[in-house]
Amino acid sequence: MTPADLAAMHCSVARTLDAIGDKWSLLIIRDAFYGLRRFDDLRKDLGVARNILADRLGKLVDKGVLVRRQYEERPPRYEYLLTERGRDLVGVVLAMMRWGDTWTGAGDPPVTITHTTCGHVTEPVVACSHCREELRLGELLADPIPVFAPRKPGMLDPVA
Amino acid sequence: MTPADLAAMHCSVARTLDAIGDKWSLLIIRDAFYGLRRFDDLRKDLGVARNILADRLGKLVDKGVLVRRQYEERPPRYEYLLTERGRDLVGVVLAMMRWGDTWTGAGDPPVTITHTTCGHVTEPVVACSHCREELRLGELLADPIPVFAPRKPGMLDPVA
Repeated sequence: MTPADLAAMHCSVARTLDAIGDKWSLLIIRDAFYGLRRFDDLRKDLGVARNILADRLGKLVDKGVLVRRQYEERPPRYEYLLTERGRDLVGVVLAMMRWGDTWTGAGDPPVTITHTTCGHVTEPVVACSHCREELRLGELLADPIPVFAPRKPGMLDPVA
Repeated sequence: MTPADLAAMHCSVARTLDAIGDKWSLLIIRDAFYGLRRFDDLRKDLGVARNILADRLGKLVDKGVLVRRQYEERPPRYEYLLTERGRDLVGVVLAMMRWGDTWTGAGDPPVTITHTTCGHVTEPVVACSHCREELRLGELLADPIPVFAPRKPGMLDPVA
């Protein structure tokens, strides 16, 4: 399967992975949220080879997640900023951070997030847009379950 | 950077990517939520080469996301089920689905999710565990921002 196939899949998870689905791309996006925007700063923080970083930045620009802006004329230098589409990935990154805090840490989370609107340290929760309860397996009906024919609704994780 | 380095990073996003951060792994996890658990079913749905699928399944078992269970003795055949740790990735997958629905679709989402507890079609929202409002950039203080020295608190996406 090529990246083009992923983009063509009738599946929003696959299409998201087409845009951001490799380790470097997601680490670049994480660093962008932390305020890193210049090639050399990203390279230093990630310890990544220049060609790989250039490739991933180019792809993220192509996918509309980052935009490239020149900040110096001589020599020409560029920085990479999150677009609106890129900024909207904050939920994906926070959900990953929460999972890592829960399952891969050894005690206190490396970074805490305070929700300044309510003033509390927050643990990001993936919640229902209607009732705001946390979305849990056993309460989620997908329509359709797209992997079986004929396609019909079914619960997520039906084998648990 | 090797996968081992990712796991050793003092960052929960990096550690999550160490466990699940490639396209195939995340597509396998998505399919597991849809109820696919057998090697051949996964191979057929994903159109992936046997060796790649075997490699990713082995890694997901190593990382504790899936567990392998024999379901047939002659010939020996195995299925792969989500562990508790794996099931807890539902938020990450739903956040990716929501982003894909918003930014990569052309109209109606391929799959709708109904929250059976409240009875409404839901659009997964990454929300504050305290006040249940959606977490938005401009309201998120990270402590510390781990990419600059000295490390101190700062807003996410400070350059917007």
